[in-house]
Amino acid sequence: MSDSPWKSSTDRRSEREEKRIAVLRTAARAFNDVGYYNTSLDDIARRLNVTKPTLYYYIKNKEEILFECVRIGLERLESASSEVIGHGGSAYDELVAVMTAYVGVVTMEFGMCVIRVGEEPLTEESRRTLRALKRRIDLKFRSLIERGIAEGSIAACDPKIAAFTLAGALSWVARWYQPDGPQTADAIARHSVDLLLNGLRPRG
Amino acid sequence: MSDSPWKSSTDRRSEREEKRIAVLRTAARAFNDVGYYNTSLDDIARRLNVTKPTLYYYIKNKEEILFECVRIGLERLESASSEVIGHGGSAYDELVAVMTAYVGVVTMEFGMCVIRVGEEPLTEESRRTLRALKRRIDLKFRSLIERGIAEGSIAACDPKIAAFTLAGALSWVARWYQPDGPQTADAIARHSVDLLLNGLRPRG
Repeated sequence: MSDSPWKSSTDRRSEREEKRIAVLRTAARAFNDVGYYNTSLDDIARRLNVTKPTLYYYIKNKEEILFECVRIGLERLESASSEVIGHGGSAYDELVAVMTAYVGVVTMEFGMCVIRVGEEPLTEESRRTLRALKRRIDLKFRSLIERGIAEGSIAACDPKIAAFTLAGALSWVARWYQPDGPQTADAIARHSVDLLLNGLRPRG
Repeated sequence: MSDSPWKSSTDRRSEREEKRIAVLRTAARAFNDVGYYNTSLDDIARRLNVTKPTLYYYIKNKEEILFECVRIGLERLESASSEVIGHGGSAYDELVAVMTAYVGVVTMEFGMCVIRVGEEPLTEESRRTLRALKRRIDLKFRSLIERGIAEGSIAACDPKIAAFTLAGALSWVARWYQPDGPQTADAIARHSVDLLLNGLRPRG
């Protein structure tokens, strides 16, 4: 702590980072609402009550904003799974936790942007980076399913198609979820995960 | 039948319609491969070995092409369900048939275009028309699920969330399916539908 009225360089850095995230979050919301191509930097500046030159202090261009939004979304999807995997539970229990956390992320700005916009508008190099992140998430789902089948906690199935089927069902929530709609993200996650665990066919 | 070397107006109309569909199909493939915004009318003309002015004989502009691709895709999704519903089977059996047919459609050009591109690039009026078609498909899923729960052929669940979960899982196939990949669309449909029917949790 210092008595100086000037901010320390550490404070300035963290303040800048905080504002940068606010820019990205506002942009992600705009992209999710009206689409990437229908959103201009002017629109983003207007939503933040700043001028376009102010934006350039935090970001280079619209492509960089989208790249960062999708990258952060994918990292949150990945850490949502890393946090629950390897704590000694059954693969089934871990998969339930990962699936539930996944819905939580895709119903927030950055995760939603991964699904609603994705990497298509970006350069091949950016797309490659983001696809590598996606692949890591897919492999986590797949290896959990494989482990579950081996230990008997998950029914026999094709792990690759099962991983895509689960990710598809859960990702799709980002397409239709409305933050001010009648159902909370938690309730949607519960119902959707339950269906994927138990299936449409009545038990017993 | 006529001996005239000139085509009848009926023949000319059907030939024109056939070529128009070829234009739309080629465009849908390009949109699915590299994205709507990365595809120009010149690209489409090149893929068809025709000039851009030739394209204008069949379509007005790129927006009209996308509208038609998505409209045809949605109509095929809807007729895939209409064909199997109401033939006296259980709601469960009908839902299995609808889900399987759904994967068949989203792995073809027009159905794939519904999922990979969608209506976002279009005008509000076009989007409204296409959303109304989507809603009809969603309501079919939902009413089948409701009927199945009532008759006991489908496990108790939230019909709205279940309909979105199924549609999401099956639509997602369009995102990752590769026509020249190792698994056929039929095999993917079988595995994916089976998982949704039986769930991840082992039976018995």
